[in-house]
Amino acid sequence: MPSSAIIHAACFAVGAVVGGGVVSAVASRKRQIPISTTSANTSIAPPIIEMGQSGGAKLSSAVSASALSSPVLKYGHPGPVPDLLVRKAYTAAYDRRLRHPAWTAEHLTLASLGKSTQQRPSGDGSGGDRSNSTFAEDESLPAMFRARLQDYFRSGYDRGHMVPAADAKLSQEAMNETFLLSNIAPQVGVGFNRHYWAYLEDWCRRLTGSFSDVYVFTIPLYLPRKDADGKFRVTYELIGSPPNVAVPTHFAKVVLASRPLSPSTPDALEISTGAFVLPNAIIPDDAPLEGFVTPVDVVERAAGLNLFSDAVKANSKHICKSTKCDVVVRRFDDAQKRPDMRRAISAPK
Amino acid sequence: MPSSAIIHAACFAVGAVVGGGVVSAVASRKRQIPISTTSANTSIAPPIIEMGQSGGAKLSSAVSASALSSPVLKYGHPGPVPDLLVRKAYTAAYDRRLRHPAWTAEHLTLASLGKSTQQRPSGDGSGGDRSNSTFAEDESLPAMFRARLQDYFRSGYDRGHMVPAADAKLSQEAMNETFLLSNIAPQVGVGFNRHYWAYLEDWCRRLTGSFSDVYVFTIPLYLPRKDADGKFRVTYELIGSPPNVAVPTHFAKVVLASRPLSPSTPDALEISTGAFVLPNAIIPDDAPLEGFVTPVDVVERAAGLNLFSDAVKANSKHICKSTKCDVVVRRFDDAQKRPDMRRAISAPK
Repeated sequence: MPSSAIIHAACFAVGAVVGGGVVSAVASRKRQIPISTTSANTSIAPPIIEMGQSGGAKLSSAVSASALSSPVLKYGHPGPVPDLLVRKAYTAAYDRRLRHPAWTAEHLTLASLGKSTQQRPSGDGSGGDRSNSTFAEDESLPAMFRARLQDYFRSGYDRGHMVPAADAKLSQEAMNETFLLSNIAPQVGVGFNRHYWAYLEDWCRRLTGSFSDVYVFTIPLYLPRKDADGKFRVTYELIGSPPNVAVPTHFAKVVLASRPLSPSTPDALEISTGAFVLPNAIIPDDAPLEGFVTPVDVVERAAGLNLFSDAVKANSKHICKSTKCDVVVRRFDDAQKRPDMRRAISAPK
Repeated sequence: MPSSAIIHAACFAVGAVVGGGVVSAVASRKRQIPISTTSANTSIAPPIIEMGQSGGAKLSSAVSASALSSPVLKYGHPGPVPDLLVRKAYTAAYDRRLRHPAWTAEHLTLASLGKSTQQRPSGDGSGGDRSNSTFAEDESLPAMFRARLQDYFRSGYDRGHMVPAADAKLSQEAMNETFLLSNIAPQVGVGFNRHYWAYLEDWCRRLTGSFSDVYVFTIPLYLPRKDADGKFRVTYELIGSPPNVAVPTHFAKVVLASRPLSPSTPDALEISTGAFVLPNAIIPDDAPLEGFVTPVDVVERAAGLNLFSDAVKANSKHICKSTKCDVVVRRFDDAQKRPDMRRAISAPK
């Protein structure tokens, strides 16, 4: 196959056209200034330590330090930087390559949702109103890796909240943070984001009625299909012009819900866990939620993440044994005619 | 589209079949043992801090500490863990989701390649012989995220070295480390791994004849194509049964080569940089290397990485202006009949 065509497509995808070959690329280089090795290690090109000092349990800080002082990384550490986003109502990690969260995590309680008769949300007391929130680019991320409002504009996809706005009623600021594009991934609108996925979000919130603490992970996934030739392939779209944000094939919700085993032993907890993997596609309202149950391990392997320790996995009950796994269908309006707030894809500011 | 089929395919991909629905998943859960909250934070489910304490330049350790002590991540930090692999002849980061390196980095010199008349490689002096090396799984990585020998077996792809064995002649141990599957990605064999890609690796080594220090990044990429409907899509294969290792659509080599501006000022360096993006496909021997030149920025955006600082980019010359960007074609044998070492895809041990 002609390689030039492939390269051309490749560069389209990431914001530059280099089909013309090397000449333009070379010609656009700025004039050369000599770099001295002494200054290179200080002002010009210090090792850029943008990621953690320890790359894993097995990697001691001593090893890491030697890596960074090694001549191999003299001109900087390339990453990947797993941006950890600590927000009022959630914590998330951002994927700089895919331009959407790697995962989001929440801790829901009756109190955090403003449903407790005894407790109010611990925010500023004002609560949050989604009609006061607007989608915004996350300026805490480097511009070159940011999802942009214009990427979603006329993309055919909703700006799907990973942490739902309705889970962040602590304050208006907490809710506004759920509208940052670092909490958003492209989702099919009608039949998914505005319907079945919303029912699942609601089910997660309703768990607070049966459990004292509910932890929810939301994880975009890229899963393969088996093609006619017997091979497994992943295919996903990129939205934006030039293409910028990846469209997940699936989304997972992974929950851990706990409650005291008995009122007399409030510190002894019963733990329940479960994972649901849904395709980013129209799902009929009458699809049973239990049909989407997937082992937590499967989500972990697909996402490259460790969600729960072996001890938690071994000692937890499946959530569908602790409570009823079914969604409440809410079609307040005709989604085709009266789009709800989730639908609004307005022009970028 | 029927969601069950999709979920079924999904689970195939990651090692478990859950098409049967929730019953088997729930039934396979182990018996439940109450977890007390006091022990949950110590022996049962300590926060698993497997990633760096600082998630980026903007994230202070104070913020990170608050995240880890926050109730949101009470049951552990999911990652992603950017495993930093510090080896004798290279440094690499592993991608736990794709099961191949996110990048590899090398520092090449005449001495490191054993070509200096004045210096020998600084290893054990024995050099390395690839006929003494065998491919091996990287046991420093968690089993669930490891690339496996059997994934490559009969996959149709070569086990392509990201850091070439020929770049690691310091010692046999250094060379053996290039055969760890954490330094390997699936590559098309004939016409790519065994030919054009090998010519590019050779070109990188030959840079040491003109530059005192050569830094080489090798980066698997997933780039989209524009389909007939005008949308950009990425399609890639997963190899293994169940599917486990992703097959990159492209590979980038990004080089930084430096040399003293003059013999009298050994600390004042001339820096040259360049990036080449090649499709993971058959490339004709006569394709000009300059046709694959791509701006470094484009590779960075596609990979979600920062390879060079703005200062280095602004103050470097393009490598194709500093030296000739052309490959030397080496077809010592008929690759169809007498495969070289790169080709050998033997049965897993």
